[in-house]
Amino acid sequence: MTKTLNVGMVGYGFMARAHSNAWANVSHFFETGYRPVLKAAAGRNVSKVRRFAQMFGYESVETDWRALIARADIDAIDICVPNDLHAEIAIAAAEAGKMVLCEKPLARTEAEGLPMVEAVEKAGVPNMVWYNYRRIPAVTLAKQLVADGKLGRIYHYRAQFLQDWTISPDVPQGGAGTWRLDVEAAGSGVTGDLLAHCLDTALWINGGISSLTAMTETFVKERKDALTGAVKPVGIDDAAAVLARFQNGSLGTFESTRYARGHKAAYTLEINGEKGSLAWNLHDLNRLAWFDHGVEGTLRGWSSVLVTDGDHPYLGKWWVPGLIIGYEHSFIHQVADFLEGLSTGEPAAPTFRDALATARVCDAILASGRSGQWVEIAS
Amino acid sequence: MTKTLNVGMVGYGFMARAHSNAWANVSHFFETGYRPVLKAAAGRNVSKVRRFAQMFGYESVETDWRALIARADIDAIDICVPNDLHAEIAIAAAEAGKMVLCEKPLARTEAEGLPMVEAVEKAGVPNMVWYNYRRIPAVTLAKQLVADGKLGRIYHYRAQFLQDWTISPDVPQGGAGTWRLDVEAAGSGVTGDLLAHCLDTALWINGGISSLTAMTETFVKERKDALTGAVKPVGIDDAAAVLARFQNGSLGTFESTRYARGHKAAYTLEINGEKGSLAWNLHDLNRLAWFDHGVEGTLRGWSSVLVTDGDHPYLGKWWVPGLIIGYEHSFIHQVADFLEGLSTGEPAAPTFRDALATARVCDAILASGRSGQWVEIAS
Amino acid sequence: MTKTLNVGMVGYGFMARAHSNAWANVSHFFETGYRPVLKAAAGRNVSKVRRFAQMFGYESVETDWRALIARADIDAIDICVPNDLHAEIAIAAAEAGKMVLCEKPLARTEAEGLPMVEAVEKAGVPNMVWYNYRRIPAVTLAKQLVADGKLGRIYHYRAQFLQDWTISPDVPQGGAGTWRLDVEAAGSGVTGDLLAHCLDTALWINGGISSLTAMTETFVKERKDALTGAVKPVGIDDAAAVLARFQNGSLGTFESTRYARGHKAAYTLEINGEKGSLAWNLHDLNRLAWFDHGVEGTLRGWSSVLVTDGDHPYLGKWWVPGLIIGYEHSFIHQVADFLEGLSTGEPAAPTFRDALATARVCDAILASGRSGQWVEIAS
Amino acid sequence: MTKTLNVGMVGYGFMARAHSNAWANVSHFFETGYRPVLKAAAGRNVSKVRRFAQMFGYESVETDWRALIARADIDAIDICVPNDLHAEIAIAAAEAGKMVLCEKPLARTEAEGLPMVEAVEKAGVPNMVWYNYRRIPAVTLAKQLVADGKLGRIYHYRAQFLQDWTISPDVPQGGAGTWRLDVEAAGSGVTGDLLAHCLDTALWINGGISSLTAMTETFVKERKDALTGAVKPVGIDDAAAVLARFQNGSLGTFESTRYARGHKAAYTLEINGEKGSLAWNLHDLNRLAWFDHGVEGTLRGWSSVLVTDGDHPYLGKWWVPGLIIGYEHSFIHQVADFLEGLSTGEPAAPTFRDALATARVCDAILASGRSGQWVEIAS
Repeated sequence: MTKTLNVGMVGYGFMARAHSNAWANVSHFFETGYRPVLKAAAGRNVSKVRRFAQMFGYESVETDWRALIARADIDAIDICVPNDLHAEIAIAAAEAGKMVLCEKPLARTEAEGLPMVEAVEKAGVPNMVWYNYRRIPAVTLAKQLVADGKLGRIYHYRAQFLQDWTISPDVPQGGAGTWRLDVEAAGSGVTGDLLAHCLDTALWINGGISSLTAMTETFVKERKDALTGAVKPVGIDDAAAVLARFQNGSLGTFESTRYARGHKAAYTLEINGEKGSLAWNLHDLNRLAWFDHGVEGTLRGWSSVLVTDGDHPYLGKWWVPGLIIGYEHSFIHQVADFLEGLSTGEPAAPTFRDALATARVCDAILASGRSGQWVEIAS
Repeated sequence: MTKTLNVGMVGYGFMARAHSNAWANVSHFFETGYRPVLKAAAGRNVSKVRRFAQMFGYESVETDWRALIARADIDAIDICVPNDLHAEIAIAAAEAGKMVLCEKPLARTEAEGLPMVEAVEKAGVPNMVWYNYRRIPAVTLAKQLVADGKLGRIYHYRAQFLQDWTISPDVPQGGAGTWRLDVEAAGSGVTGDLLAHCLDTALWINGGISSLTAMTETFVKERKDALTGAVKPVGIDDAAAVLARFQNGSLGTFESTRYARGHKAAYTLEINGEKGSLAWNLHDLNRLAWFDHGVEGTLRGWSSVLVTDGDHPYLGKWWVPGLIIGYEHSFIHQVADFLEGLSTGEPAAPTFRDALATARVCDAILASGRSGQWVEIAS
Repeated sequence: MTKTLNVGMVGYGFMARAHSNAWANVSHFFETGYRPVLKAAAGRNVSKVRRFAQMFGYESVETDWRALIARADIDAIDICVPNDLHAEIAIAAAEAGKMVLCEKPLARTEAEGLPMVEAVEKAGVPNMVWYNYRRIPAVTLAKQLVADGKLGRIYHYRAQFLQDWTISPDVPQGGAGTWRLDVEAAGSGVTGDLLAHCLDTALWINGGISSLTAMTETFVKERKDALTGAVKPVGIDDAAAVLARFQNGSLGTFESTRYARGHKAAYTLEINGEKGSLAWNLHDLNRLAWFDHGVEGTLRGWSSVLVTDGDHPYLGKWWVPGLIIGYEHSFIHQVADFLEGLSTGEPAAPTFRDALATARVCDAILASGRSGQWVEIAS
Repeated sequence: MTKTLNVGMVGYGFMARAHSNAWANVSHFFETGYRPVLKAAAGRNVSKVRRFAQMFGYESVETDWRALIARADIDAIDICVPNDLHAEIAIAAAEAGKMVLCEKPLARTEAEGLPMVEAVEKAGVPNMVWYNYRRIPAVTLAKQLVADGKLGRIYHYRAQFLQDWTISPDVPQGGAGTWRLDVEAAGSGVTGDLLAHCLDTALWINGGISSLTAMTETFVKERKDALTGAVKPVGIDDAAAVLARFQNGSLGTFESTRYARGHKAAYTLEINGEKGSLAWNLHDLNRLAWFDHGVEGTLRGWSSVLVTDGDHPYLGKWWVPGLIIGYEHSFIHQVADFLEGLSTGEPAAPTFRDALATARVCDAILASGRSGQWVEIAS
């Protein structure tokens, strides 16, 4: 018998829309034993939260997240607000016995995230962090190929997340649209926003990172505050590049920037193993590039696998071969796995604890960017 | 004030799912003045239609489409059944005063489609055919570029729709999954199923076709009937290729097949004009290839435009630059335009009459495939 | 013991340069038993032929091709002049007992080519036509894959040769640089110049064409004569598109134009078979796209084979894996095979007779373009 | 009046073949005032050097490079032997008053290279190091675009050189074919062999590197000696990755490995500037990817410029638009520029001194790989 799951959304921005779309659609395609109900949305601006709720069909609104958490008819709190608010809301939700789903990164630092982990674990509530790219079918397939040993020993893991939207010095910091440039709200720049995605995927597919060294840079040193107009120093990292050693002996290189003209959301990854290699690009997310060294010599080449067949991860639930899905589907898949996890009792990853490991690596990157030294990562 | 639009769906297969997804989601992203309600779904198999209705949230089910049309609480009938049933249902719906939305092709032939056109026009009901690929943002952008004269005089229009799913002679014909191979149900093979898409786009972007010659072929001459198991002659065209002359003086080449190994749903088009060219591929539907002859000589090249920015068609309603959408979004866009058309009184294209012109070209292709002669197309 | 082969070149234009480069370099990389000597070059303009001879190291020059043929120290005549001169020179050379190598197409028509074939066969002299694209390693590999049955039954053969250099009506016809636009000199437009390449490859890889229908067009109806400045009707085909049936039951589509903005020399081909498909593009000539249906389902995709390894055709003679070769190497390979043929007694293809079959298809295309009828091709 | 330049080649391996091809062909296409004569080749193995000389047309052979340098009829010495022999030969040649062309890298270390620089400068002889990739037309065009300010301020420079040919532990070290794995002969592994190319291009296009940190790794710790069969420790770096800061404030990331399965000679580079970006790949060396932020928003995209037109660097000397050239042409261009430099008195870059700067960066990479520390580079 299908159960309902009453969702309380905190926020009404870009991520709240992506998550709401997932909650609204998952039951149209996946049979998980649970049917989410978009119960209530919370946001400080009442007209904005009302319009948001109306569009997505939330039954009611709140203007204080505490009120949302206090409601008995809410089963799960979904946190879609700037990073500096994650901890307080998540801990309160956990203490109220709610399931907690938190947009990534878990928190601004590992230190800030640790009490969140402790809270959900103490409360024993289902919890998850929205590192959604794991559920792009091509990425899930990549994970399976590595796990199945198709690549053999791994030598290299390479990832980049390139954007270009902050090149103009006229882009402000802070406020609703540009809080990601405000170090107070965001905790860091590209490291927590973009590299964190790359790291989550890497740790999942290739295991732990044992040590790293990093270079960080802030190209635009001062920006106006979006709310006050005052020119203030920029505290975030505009770009970060990392050399890393994985526990399995492979080498990692990671890079992220918002100053790579021509790239919008170019998250790319490549893995080189003894028996094969694979590569992927968020811009063409339905394709997985695959090189199989086992193919006879004259016909070996990089294959572009269009990951849209019924036997590809998640695709059996969608359309027919050749018809692609988009960015937003990764969230639907994540919700589907979360709900499935409620049914089976096997928590869907990444949990808060999983995400803490990513936060630890982010901290190390920022520390190394300051010190110029290699940093060891506790496993 | 937003009005509701009660939708009655006929069918529960692949297309019914794609359309239902569109009805269910359009209001989450587009403000058109109308909010669709998934009111009822009709299908002969009661358990299948119930499961379908439950997943997508239809409020009720019918097992006879006539009952659906008879219901006073239904505003629009959406026809998602095999081609041979389009005419009867559409005409009945129009006569009942319902809006009618019909999956493409309009009918099996122009002759069969004409009474459908007459019925909706006589009834004065809003009507539309689901040639959804017009609403892929990159295709819409292509249309705009040609209309704006960015390509100058057009010399060549080229389109293909390549698949490979019927190569095995073990694929049956008829039945729920393979009615597209049964000439009685489908009317034709690749011509009505695939080329019709290419033709709809071509007529829309490049204007009318004045004459054509075609080659058609049926590679597998006999197949089992999916229901009875009896081996029967195959009546459809497995492949079709066309040479055409457009009214604007440009040359057209069209090809479709289900025997192009390695292609799943490879609808590609290319347009060459005096000042520029463009190309598009359904497999990578968010990209538009664009060659601008106006660029200085040493830097001229084909650009891959990632059509995901806020100022691209429809994209301002979705995510942020670089984050792609999928196949299904074309249906959401089509519903949005249909609803917008209800609000403004400007009917959204393609109407039944628009689709009749495509049927006329399909008929000419099949006739030429039989006769080997050039066929003139009435404009 | 290596023998010398004294080459007499007729012409000093683009093709004479490409052939001379081949004669000059073949012995640096291929050991065939013969070493060509660039003995003499003939051309009407004495200063131009002298400069040409000096750059490529021809030992002497002639200003009359008859004088070249009359020389006892010339073993082979290489014809690199406009198409209308091929027959007379080739026949004279054959009658003088010279080996004859003729730039493609063999002649302006099959009727003009037939006496050339008869002359070389009567004289018993080695002869070859420079359909050089057979010797692009990726194309040679394609031929091998089809011949080895890797694709199984062939369903579709598709080729295009797209250019854009004559779009401007200011491009003249006739003269040294633009004789290809003069129907007297060239015989036809894109059919003999570009489609002939596509057809040579197709007949070689996929066997004979049994029938075809074609559409031809001349977009610019009048052009100035490059020499006299007089405006004259344009007699060539600017564009041609063809539907064809091969003897093996597969369908062919061919297209060529000089009005495809953005394409320089875009000779592309694709072959779809039951078990696999392949595709190739002259612009990226070192790559062969290959789809192997035998690969397990979730990993199937089009592979981009970088044809640069030592076990790829001809590549063992060049550099190391990953380092590409260019257009001109196809001529070097053709010379190598020609010389190897002299050593072994196995004539290198395509001979004059082979090229006559291509001329026959070209004639049929032009005839069908005029009549609009399907044309049967004698095999 | 054209002068002759008598070339004495030291070596007969892969590089000797590439250089000889350049010397043999340059005059067929470029008019520089000089015509090289392949005068003599020197190598220890008399039968090998004879066969090499015969194939490329060297007039004579020597089995001792000292004898070659001693000959009065030799104008220029071209050094194509393992790295450990560069210094002795180059210094001797300079002292004998010969022009000296040395295969890259200049030497195993900066310290070893410095006396070479001093020798050629003291002797006042023309000198050049074969960092041939500067003369790939697309790379030359990239240099011009950056120099012309088309990219504006540079933020990022990224380069990789990926191969996969030493993954098997059965590949030996030392000897004729695998001296690049022997640290004594090569000086280093991928750093001197592959990264040196990336660095030469980077320093040329983007200016000096001020500091860097690096990670190096040797995946296979022991290999057999190719000559003795004895298992010995591997002294080279199998992989190296670098974070760098350029003097102009941009960030650099560099990586090279011979363990990237599926990559043969994948030298790629990308440069991101304020106004545009560009990217290039050796495997498709005729293409330059170019993103122009100045294009109107909806049509912006990465362009694939096929660098084959007459107004592209060097291409006016070759074929016609669309017809590509290969790897080896970069050497022909370098010889052409060298000869042109002799005529004009403007030395062609990179000179020995230019190459010393690259050696300095290579040394820093290896040092940082050992120490884990950032290293400052003297400018």
